[in-house]
Amino acid sequence: MRVFLSGLMGVGKTTVAAALARRLGVEHIDLDTHIERDSNRSIAQLFEEEGEARFRQRERDTARRLMTREGIVVSLGGGTVTNHEVRRALLNAGTLITLSAPLEVLVKRVGSGKGRPLLSTDPGSRLAALLAERAPAYAECHATVNAAQPLESIVNDLIRVVNDTECHRVVVPLGLRTYPVMIGTGCRRRVGELASGAVRGRNALVISDQNTTKPWGEEVSELLREHSFHVAEVVIEPGEHHKSVRTVEQIWDAALDAGLDRQSMLVGVGGGVVGDLTAFAASTLLRGVAVAQVPTSLLAMVDSSVGGKTGFNRVHGKNLVGTFHQPHFVLCDQETLSTLAVAERTSGLAEVVKSAWIDGEDSVRELERDAAALAAGDSEALGRAIRMSVSLKASVVEADELESGRRMVLNLGHTLGHALEAVDGYQGIRHGEAVSLGMIAAARVAEAMHGLGEGQSERLMNLLAALGLPVDLRDHLTERAVSFIGSDKKRRGDDVMFIMPHAPGDVRVERHPTHQIAKSMLAILG
Amino acid sequence: MRVFLSGLMGVGKTTVAAALARRLGVEHIDLDTHIERDSNRSIAQLFEEEGEARFRQRERDTARRLMTREGIVVSLGGGTVTNHEVRRALLNAGTLITLSAPLEVLVKRVGSGKGRPLLSTDPGSRLAALLAERAPAYAECHATVNAAQPLESIVNDLIRVVNDTECHRVVVPLGLRTYPVMIGTGCRRRVGELASGAVRGRNALVISDQNTTKPWGEEVSELLREHSFHVAEVVIEPGEHHKSVRTVEQIWDAALDAGLDRQSMLVGVGGGVVGDLTAFAASTLLRGVAVAQVPTSLLAMVDSSVGGKTGFNRVHGKNLVGTFHQPHFVLCDQETLSTLAVAERTSGLAEVVKSAWIDGEDSVRELERDAAALAAGDSEALGRAIRMSVSLKASVVEADELESGRRMVLNLGHTLGHALEAVDGYQGIRHGEAVSLGMIAAARVAEAMHGLGEGQSERLMNLLAALGLPVDLRDHLTERAVSFIGSDKKRRGDDVMFIMPHAPGDVRVERHPTHQIAKSMLAILG
Repeated sequence: MRVFLSGLMGVGKTTVAAALARRLGVEHIDLDTHIERDSNRSIAQLFEEEGEARFRQRERDTARRLMTREGIVVSLGGGTVTNHEVRRALLNAGTLITLSAPLEVLVKRVGSGKGRPLLSTDPGSRLAALLAERAPAYAECHATVNAAQPLESIVNDLIRVVNDTECHRVVVPLGLRTYPVMIGTGCRRRVGELASGAVRGRNALVISDQNTTKPWGEEVSELLREHSFHVAEVVIEPGEHHKSVRTVEQIWDAALDAGLDRQSMLVGVGGGVVGDLTAFAASTLLRGVAVAQVPTSLLAMVDSSVGGKTGFNRVHGKNLVGTFHQPHFVLCDQETLSTLAVAERTSGLAEVVKSAWIDGEDSVRELERDAAALAAGDSEALGRAIRMSVSLKASVVEADELESGRRMVLNLGHTLGHALEAVDGYQGIRHGEAVSLGMIAAARVAEAMHGLGEGQSERLMNLLAALGLPVDLRDHLTERAVSFIGSDKKRRGDDVMFIMPHAPGDVRVERHPTHQIAKSMLAILG
Repeated sequence: MRVFLSGLMGVGKTTVAAALARRLGVEHIDLDTHIERDSNRSIAQLFEEEGEARFRQRERDTARRLMTREGIVVSLGGGTVTNHEVRRALLNAGTLITLSAPLEVLVKRVGSGKGRPLLSTDPGSRLAALLAERAPAYAECHATVNAAQPLESIVNDLIRVVNDTECHRVVVPLGLRTYPVMIGTGCRRRVGELASGAVRGRNALVISDQNTTKPWGEEVSELLREHSFHVAEVVIEPGEHHKSVRTVEQIWDAALDAGLDRQSMLVGVGGGVVGDLTAFAASTLLRGVAVAQVPTSLLAMVDSSVGGKTGFNRVHGKNLVGTFHQPHFVLCDQETLSTLAVAERTSGLAEVVKSAWIDGEDSVRELERDAAALAAGDSEALGRAIRMSVSLKASVVEADELESGRRMVLNLGHTLGHALEAVDGYQGIRHGEAVSLGMIAAARVAEAMHGLGEGQSERLMNLLAALGLPVDLRDHLTERAVSFIGSDKKRRGDDVMFIMPHAPGDVRVERHPTHQIAKSMLAILG
């Protein structure tokens, strides 16, 4: 257990951290006090003598050392999390919680700003400026807790976050648009509480399809009503074939019929099609309203519900129209997988393998260990796989939200994968099955073009096969299928951005002539 | 004539400014030298002794004094424009140009960083960090000129920008998404040059409607082809009735048929409908491609082409689906108004009056002076009106791009205006005519609710009438029309965000119960 409390000066980090540590029976460490003791000087002196930049360096080094200790509650400095790397490390090392309070409260508490080097003149407006400047950094945390309440209530709120064993929280850190992905059995039941905190309005539209409306869509609607939402519902037709602008129109009109305004929320309950259409509709309705996702397929949990890509198909290809629109929260509840066909769950495992391959050796090994349990649908193994995939995705999305570079690695296996789906008119092979074959082809192409041994593609095939995914390219890798390569968004003129797996943890985005990739693909079969 | 040269240290601001001043025959002032002389200390000393914050204050004060002088070329400090207010003031006071060069060039030029306080250690990586940090500030300028070329070529490029009397440039300052609005007779001919600089690809789709394709759409296509673009064209049906998702589909499919990729550009040539649909299609095609606007109606020039609002209608109301997607540039060429029906041109003047009223007394007076010339379609008066409207819009959009607050003032007159259009099914009264009546109603409501005299509404009526706009509410302000109030995006639950003109320059966004606004409206007629 490691808890880090952040927030602006005056919010009460030290007092609250001490009280929390007492309640949890662990050690409390105050970062500033720690630094003062180490350096034998006061914070004010350090600022005066060394300047802010060097103080921040000291603060970073100390915070990094503390991150390795177990059983601690750390009250951070007000500016500690303004450094991107420190913030990221804190998010990964433990539970990072921001304490917040209205500006008036803070101004009252810091008084004249004595002993606080950043407040030397005009504490009020300086605090306001600091708050504005740091808001995006403070937002990147596991939870924000109201510090303008009695100490006991603050501590109770903190305990609820820290002791939340039911739901694991992965944070997608995007400044003011940061959001949590909650993963765990039963966590769908948080939808009302989270929606209440996410939007000011009390109108919601729940979107599900004919396969997910009972029981999940209806349950989510009911949970929202329990939190005083007026809920309208729309049930769309299931399947990729209905991932069209016509279905988006159905969602827009249901929202407009229900009188939704800009403070309302759309909630998608279903697989990738429901999620992508819901998020697209939300991104364009009244020029953008909030969206939340309750994915009920493994594919949607580990991939499409996180990261903000939205869209639908045109006759020219898949997802050719869309937007980037991040959700306000995502709830991945393994219980909802109970109504998913086994073949669909297995299909979703292909994206899990993709994530592990991008993430690196540790994640691949974990999957290899868990393969049998995952194939059997074991809930704990699925929970681990979802957490790994979502964490990987969160870090990739943070680095490149709009897919101008690094994020393209998430298309590993998708170049051929999309082509295989396209050749069947998106009605034959499942997405995950196509990605499974696409990853094998990509590994083989990487081996051929970069002179690697065949160890990687064999290992990949064994893992995919153990999970029950198709690995035999022979029936699928046809001239006609390959001719569909480059018809999607990864095209750059006559080139294609191909995702080349050199090894687990070393997956690269490379630009190659489309015809060369097509040729290399066909050469695999010899 | 006032020219301000900005850019990172090492880019050659001082040398270039001196050469430019010689060529222009005006005085050259180097901001740093000026500060050193004033303070009798070197920049390095000032940093050392006073710290960066106080140096920036000194820099701001000096820059502000220089802004009032005529006939100068000023080489700014590298960090001068990092202050938002200074940057804004420089943009308004003269021509602000950023000199840019690749990082390698800069590193070579600054050498060990001697005498440059911000480069004391590791100049290379410090310069890279400064460049990344300041890129959004440097982007907010009238033009960026390549400084990695011989001095004479740099100066020639600068002269072309500074002596550009044909096109007046208004900058919409939005960090890295900053863009210019070019206003002037003939400036549509810049489309090829600007498009070449704006996107890396060489595919473009030109969207026009049956009224604007000849001669404007075809000419723009030709101009793009002269700059080596592959150009596809789509001609949509004209009119509000076709502002629908069906027409957007026509644009998406034309783009996909033509094989556009993410580096391509969509160019809208027409009125507000063409512009809004083109920009919406661009914002969603392949999750977002670049868009440029060549508005050919006065309404589109002064309002819809600038600011990034896109959208189309549903049966529930106007523009209920849309996005925010800023253009890469806008070309407002009065010559294109020659093919516009006089009634349409007149309708556009309503939005000009709206802009003046929001802007303040000076702008209203200018319009009152120009009223007869504007009514007659005088090109110079139109140019002034467009510049005023675009400048006002740029500053409002900068302050609140996503319309979460201040930007709502631009809806002055639109609450009733939209209702009047809706009651006619968007097929009767023109938008500007409806806004004219809506503004008068808003002024009368403001007078009644806030106890103002009737001077404002009378003045507004006189101006609108002088411009040829309708001012008689009697035929339009019906119970049925008023019942449409609050059916648009300005609604908040049972309230409406009503735009209340207290006086020119004092237009406020106020939240009122919808029924109360409806009641006040009907009370106007007594």
